[in-house]
Amino acid sequence: MTEKNYRLTLDAIGNRDPAYLETIFSLGNGHFGIRAGDVLTPSATAGTIINGLYETAPIQYGEAAYGYAANHQTTVALPDLRVITIQNAAGEAFVTNALGEKTLDLRSGQLQESWLATDPNGATIQVQLTSVLQQPAGNLAALTYTVTAVTYTGKLTLAKTLKMPPQAAVSGDPRQARHLAPPAVHLAQPDAQTLVATIRTRQSRQVQQLQLAAAQGLTFAADLVPGAGITYPVVAVVNALNDESRLGLNVPVASLTKSVATAAKRYWQGFWAHSDASIQGDFRLDLAIHYNLFQLASAAGQDGKTNIAAKGLSGTGYEGHYFWDTEMYMLPFLTYTNPQIAKRLLEYRARILPQAQSRARLLGVDSGALFAWRTINGEEASAYFPAGTAQYHIDGDVAFAVDRYWQVTGDQAFMRSTGLQLLIATARFWAAFGSWSERAHQQTFEFFAVTGPDEYTALVNNNYYTNRIAKFNLATAAQLAAEFPTAAAQWQVTATEIADWRHKAAAVFLPYSDDLQINEQDDSAFHKPVWPFAQTPKDHYPLLLHYHPLTIYRYQVNKQADTLLADYLFDDLDAAQLQREYAYYESITTHDSSLSRSIFSALAARLGQQEKAYRYFMDTAAMDLVDLQQNAADGLHIANLGGSWLSLATGFGGLAIKSGVLSVTNHLPRQWQSLTLRVQIQGRLLQITYRPKKHR
Amino acid sequence: MTEKNYRLTLDAIGNRDPAYLETIFSLGNGHFGIRAGDVLTPSATAGTIINGLYETAPIQYGEAAYGYAANHQTTVALPDLRVITIQNAAGEAFVTNALGEKTLDLRSGQLQESWLATDPNGATIQVQLTSVLQQPAGNLAALTYTVTAVTYTGKLTLAKTLKMPPQAAVSGDPRQARHLAPPAVHLAQPDAQTLVATIRTRQSRQVQQLQLAAAQGLTFAADLVPGAGITYPVVAVVNALNDESRLGLNVPVASLTKSVATAAKRYWQGFWAHSDASIQGDFRLDLAIHYNLFQLASAAGQDGKTNIAAKGLSGTGYEGHYFWDTEMYMLPFLTYTNPQIAKRLLEYRARILPQAQSRARLLGVDSGALFAWRTINGEEASAYFPAGTAQYHIDGDVAFAVDRYWQVTGDQAFMRSTGLQLLIATARFWAAFGSWSERAHQQTFEFFAVTGPDEYTALVNNNYYTNRIAKFNLATAAQLAAEFPTAAAQWQVTATEIADWRHKAAAVFLPYSDDLQINEQDDSAFHKPVWPFAQTPKDHYPLLLHYHPLTIYRYQVNKQADTLLADYLFDDLDAAQLQREYAYYESITTHDSSLSRSIFSALAARLGQQEKAYRYFMDTAAMDLVDLQQNAADGLHIANLGGSWLSLATGFGGLAIKSGVLSVTNHLPRQWQSLTLRVQIQGRLLQITYRPKKHR
Repeated sequence: MTEKNYRLTLDAIGNRDPAYLETIFSLGNGHFGIRAGDVLTPSATAGTIINGLYETAPIQYGEAAYGYAANHQTTVALPDLRVITIQNAAGEAFVTNALGEKTLDLRSGQLQESWLATDPNGATIQVQLTSVLQQPAGNLAALTYTVTAVTYTGKLTLAKTLKMPPQAAVSGDPRQARHLAPPAVHLAQPDAQTLVATIRTRQSRQVQQLQLAAAQGLTFAADLVPGAGITYPVVAVVNALNDESRLGLNVPVASLTKSVATAAKRYWQGFWAHSDASIQGDFRLDLAIHYNLFQLASAAGQDGKTNIAAKGLSGTGYEGHYFWDTEMYMLPFLTYTNPQIAKRLLEYRARILPQAQSRARLLGVDSGALFAWRTINGEEASAYFPAGTAQYHIDGDVAFAVDRYWQVTGDQAFMRSTGLQLLIATARFWAAFGSWSERAHQQTFEFFAVTGPDEYTALVNNNYYTNRIAKFNLATAAQLAAEFPTAAAQWQVTATEIADWRHKAAAVFLPYSDDLQINEQDDSAFHKPVWPFAQTPKDHYPLLLHYHPLTIYRYQVNKQADTLLADYLFDDLDAAQLQREYAYYESITTHDSSLSRSIFSALAARLGQQEKAYRYFMDTAAMDLVDLQQNAADGLHIANLGGSWLSLATGFGGLAIKSGVLSVTNHLPRQWQSLTLRVQIQGRLLQITYRPKKHR
Repeated sequence: MTEKNYRLTLDAIGNRDPAYLETIFSLGNGHFGIRAGDVLTPSATAGTIINGLYETAPIQYGEAAYGYAANHQTTVALPDLRVITIQNAAGEAFVTNALGEKTLDLRSGQLQESWLATDPNGATIQVQLTSVLQQPAGNLAALTYTVTAVTYTGKLTLAKTLKMPPQAAVSGDPRQARHLAPPAVHLAQPDAQTLVATIRTRQSRQVQQLQLAAAQGLTFAADLVPGAGITYPVVAVVNALNDESRLGLNVPVASLTKSVATAAKRYWQGFWAHSDASIQGDFRLDLAIHYNLFQLASAAGQDGKTNIAAKGLSGTGYEGHYFWDTEMYMLPFLTYTNPQIAKRLLEYRARILPQAQSRARLLGVDSGALFAWRTINGEEASAYFPAGTAQYHIDGDVAFAVDRYWQVTGDQAFMRSTGLQLLIATARFWAAFGSWSERAHQQTFEFFAVTGPDEYTALVNNNYYTNRIAKFNLATAAQLAAEFPTAAAQWQVTATEIADWRHKAAAVFLPYSDDLQINEQDDSAFHKPVWPFAQTPKDHYPLLLHYHPLTIYRYQVNKQADTLLADYLFDDLDAAQLQREYAYYESITTHDSSLSRSIFSALAARLGQQEKAYRYFMDTAAMDLVDLQQNAADGLHIANLGGSWLSLATGFGGLAIKSGVLSVTNHLPRQWQSLTLRVQIQGRLLQITYRPKKHR
């Protein structure tokens, strides 16, 4: 464990776009996040992001219909806590003249930055900033500014305030945040050291307070000569609504910044002690995976009321919404390494069950619950149902995550309450949503007009992934309701209902192509022509930005793993069939989704195709560090951060758990000297070390 | 031909909702329409509608994607030409105290109305208004007011102005018009007799002028005693932008109103002479069919630049858009009776070919043209593509209408230009849009991710109707391009291309169920469960207003004839199969679309089920007169007006044309004494009289 493998500097990344760097060097603690904007000039894309805070507005439809999602929920970037004004003796502002230096220390959670800045006369100062957030999920940010005169001589005035970020230009990219009316901000300065911003969103009527405390005063002046410097510590409090978290008068700011830093360092050391994944023999990948795990943990809500947004707390892309990404891509790492966080995230799902039950009723399903495809408050916020609400599989994804948590932790108390409640509500949905059909004189249980994970195919019948996970969900609910009969009785589960789930689980239809001898993505997938890849210019990817959905839907083309994701999860194919399926689906997959490559890597490793697995893993592990998707400026691809751990642990490391029994298989690529994983299985911390097999 | 069978009064209709009556007694002349609003109080739902006039605004999508329709096109209701202010001596306004009397004379085009009105003191006057529009498609409306004192004594002041209708409340019903910013209205009064309103739409930048000319002055006062009356003629000019149509000073308004009325009467007498359809032995149905044909003819644009809106000129529902309704429901009547109008409507399609070509390119189809699903200016205005742009069948519908026009008229000049051009552009689309697949070792030409006429089923593969009309389109284009080689060469049609169309036409796949021995709506239609009709409350129809599209899509349920429409058009099934198909599809059809019952009636007649045909026809013929769909307040269902002629002429009358040969079959129901149709075949006016067969 060498220090540099846990330290990200600008050297490690090629892109110098300021908005991109704001994302990459952002800090989060589950409760809030700060983007690493310029220290002297407010950026339209920087600001403070609070998990679960959103503004709302009615969704405008060109043509509306019954049951459409009613309201947007959109995360709101609040004032940038980091920005400071520095003026020369004439009251003229210094501006930074380059991106400066940045170092993110993953073992202490500290971001160290330094910039050179000039005034209109060309006089130069150096500004250094150390940022660290209170961990875990605390309210405090400790910001320590050190300003040193380089060529400047005279009075320097530092001033802190809180201003909403400037409005960014509106874009047509559906993946970016939309702009709603900015919240009302009311500033109060109870004393010279303290600034309190009370922020009210106009429609969702949420209230937040940000507080700044600066012992030297919100405005602080000093006379400097070249080489001389001053240190100016500030503590920011996020969500300072209650007296406990609000800082009082004469708070010892400098010592508080130190104690926040000390606690953060302790937290991250503990984190690595039970969560580390290390690759010996590839510095770049080792750093990348550490970075990914650091940022994934930083994104996770820990209060049971919040979850993990698609961009975490690193940006406002995807409007701060929570998706199935949590259960399928982020929770595996957290479940194996930080089960207490995983539990809180599953409790969030239980908390929004009432909204999910209403949603199921609105969709004409008279039992169970259907989770919103994208949401913050539990209500559906997807404004395009064919690639939103139609992704019913989210119910099965939640059930899968519950079962994984149960197998990894053996947490009976959780299963008796939240776990079983989620399994029952989702199983009831599938049982009521599906319908009986006949195939070759056999009764089959089928699901119509659904969309699987691959959003390049919409509104199909019997999507393989959906059906497979529904089958799992029904069977698992039946099994665990039988194992915990007293708990199940709480939710009126009867023996008849359990038998019904078992019956339906056994009868779920799974599309299979006799011609190709592989599982078929849906009832009609292989009948469509294959996308004309040879005629598609390279700059026409991602396809969704260059082709009408109708064009994409009429071809065989996948945005991401779909049937292969089921193969990955359920691991129920013989090697030959898996090999055939992999080859087939790989040939029609564009990886336009950031959720794709990690699964392709893990399956390739399982298939013994280490070179291919390695290539996919490289793109997965370093996706945001090389800006592969070219939109990291909007925020990190948090699901892919989790996906890179999936590739590493469950692909190369062959980590799996079945019926509570852990298995490990060595699929290491020859490039590495070794791989070390730390995981917790049923309360026991394990370290697993892999070395490449010889003579391959 | 008795007079009362051509005269609609309030006696004939049950509904007394003012907005509904505005629709029913509306007048149109293809160029503009006026709704029969209250004469003294402006109504939010009344006003003047000009064919082709629209305002535009960007379509707001909750979640947009590449290639989505960019802009709304929304018809704009302009000031109500009919409304007048009448004040007593104290300057207080009279208001009507009841709906009054209304008589629409279908043989003269005159609407006669009378109201009693009172002032705040309870003094009463009678107001009579005769409205008639210049025919065909002229600019003038002649309005003659007669005001008689009943109990009132004293000075009466009449005043005409032009004001935009009050803004109506916003509704969630997707079938109603949306509200865009009202246009700018500038009033000028060049002299005491003349008012000119210049109206500019703000975004689409269209300009219209409305002129009022009143020889007695725009304000006119007279002293009356009970029993005494005054007559006040006004001529309104719609689209008075050019000097020719604008009325000059000292225009003889009274004589002009008379000459407009005389010309209109002449026009309508001619219309009935070559267009009449009469049912002897059923006064109510006879009146209804006359009303329908009158309103259908009143709705049709005749300048080659405009078409027929879904609601004609009788209301702003469906935003004034032109749909496939024109070709499949309205054009049959016009083609058989008023071919010069039919020709102009097809010329409109040729006029918007450039937009249709661009649309095809945007949909990833590199040849041919795809007509917008809903449009005024030729650009796609459908904001929900699964039930909009995905209805590719509109191309085939246009081709079908061209062929019908050709067979009925034998108009070679048209075929050499517009006709062939439309056939070629649409055939090219299908040839490039379809793709080759294999079924049972046969190469088949198929169409994926399409929506047929039945909007309760969306984004399916090989919709029977779509495939059948595409097959027809390819074959017909091939045949006529070969018949008119010189003309075809204009559009670079080669022998190779003709052969390609023939080859593909022959290979188009048509779904068929071996189990049920009927044509199947699409590749997977019969595999879905049937809609739970028994559990659906009566007030939950139309389903689209009570169920999410995902709920509707996962069942077998039809909004309207789909496969049956193909059966109706192509008449290529033996009676037994047709009977099976009819019974099957009837059992799953809700008739939530106004386009449905006419086809069910015509097919039932063809099947010899006269009682059933008669019941469907009753609902079709009187649909708006009994407000069956409960939304006639938004405008007439013009397609259904045409549909009622389809039921009558092609159902009961068995009228058909194949290879230019007319055939007639008597399917009359026993309720009628006789049916008389007038049609023009290849320039010859025919009258066909049917009497019920004896001894049935």
